[in-house]
Amino acid sequence: MSLLEKLNWRYASKAMNGQVVPQEKVNNIIEAARLAPTSSGLQPFEVYVITNPDVKEKIKAAAFNQSVVTDCSHLLVFAAWDTYTAERINHMFDLTNEKRGFTNEGFEAYRKNLLANYTAKSAEDNHQHAAKQAYIAFGMSLAAAAFEGVDATPMEGFNPSAVDEILGLKEKGLKSTLLLPLGYRDVEKDWLAGLVKVRKSYQDFVTEIK
Amino acid sequence: MSLLEKLNWRYASKAMNGQVVPQEKVNNIIEAARLAPTSSGLQPFEVYVITNPDVKEKIKAAAFNQSVVTDCSHLLVFAAWDTYTAERINHMFDLTNEKRGFTNEGFEAYRKNLLANYTAKSAEDNHQHAAKQAYIAFGMSLAAAAFEGVDATPMEGFNPSAVDEILGLKEKGLKSTLLLPLGYRDVEKDWLAGLVKVRKSYQDFVTEIK
Repeated sequence: MSLLEKLNWRYASKAMNGQVVPQEKVNNIIEAARLAPTSSGLQPFEVYVITNPDVKEKIKAAAFNQSVVTDCSHLLVFAAWDTYTAERINHMFDLTNEKRGFTNEGFEAYRKNLLANYTAKSAEDNHQHAAKQAYIAFGMSLAAAAFEGVDATPMEGFNPSAVDEILGLKEKGLKSTLLLPLGYRDVEKDWLAGLVKVRKSYQDFVTEIK
Repeated sequence: MSLLEKLNWRYASKAMNGQVVPQEKVNNIIEAARLAPTSSGLQPFEVYVITNPDVKEKIKAAAFNQSVVTDCSHLLVFAAWDTYTAERINHMFDLTNEKRGFTNEGFEAYRKNLLANYTAKSAEDNHQHAAKQAYIAFGMSLAAAAFEGVDATPMEGFNPSAVDEILGLKEKGLKSTLLLPLGYRDVEKDWLAGLVKVRKSYQDFVTEIK
């Protein structure tokens, strides 16, 4: 199957059958998020991988009791930085210098620029920017899940403060942003499984400027 | 190559060699965005595909003169809805009913809910939510580009109002959100091409809750 056939195969499964996704596939889906590009390479988010049934139950209660949160094999929570701080920015610049084995004047000037810019902005603006980077990674994980033949249900519909509380995210300077249950569709129980995928036509979606 | 090998191969190319990307590959990259999941299936964004040299030049001037904007083969602009309106929401619900060939009480109740919720929110909040959906699609296009062996440079660094003006987006109720030049890396000219890809370690990125 081509990647596009796989992207046509995927959908937001509303019921999963509890079958466990092999660890290698889970790792590949997470790795797609880890490799995602982010603004200035800061990777301003983390991923929580939840298999603990009690924690899944608690999160389900904070997600309008959607059964897929507990039916799934692995529940991913994408959690974005609550803000950009000097410590976080310096950490990524230092890591980059260490991995590349050299420092560079232009890169250091860029670091100073970012330090000044981000620390002048409100925490909420910074968090929203960080959250957007998590959305890029989320899209890449969705593509990777389809590539692996694993169902994945993109979810924004939950109570973020409640999930933050359950996972102790506030203390870590993180805010839950997106949920991604991974597993295998239960075709009999899932009302959405048999329905046609609907998208705007190419003509309504794309404007070519030649 | 596995998808992960391709995601490791990709990077944010800073210089491209002008070689034209075959139309089929461009279409596959756009199709990944068109197939991306979005909140309530509303697809609140469009994609502009620019090959016109004059328009690319103008956008380059609005993007800190980054050469990749004109070196690239195709310049994609992801443009998100400026707000959610009743007309836009109804259009997608009507399209869904038409494609599926039936109406459903629960789905119609959900439509009413969305109409009430979105029209009560500020245009800026709605736009930010729409923009986030574009980021998911952007991530999927990035994965698709890597899969196709096409370089793609994710760009947030440009003047959105200027790009809106160049493309006449305001009149269409759209705001430019992300740029994605597609093409082929010019290894000799690109300072970033030879540098090690740096990412947080798995341990720093992932928390497992078993």
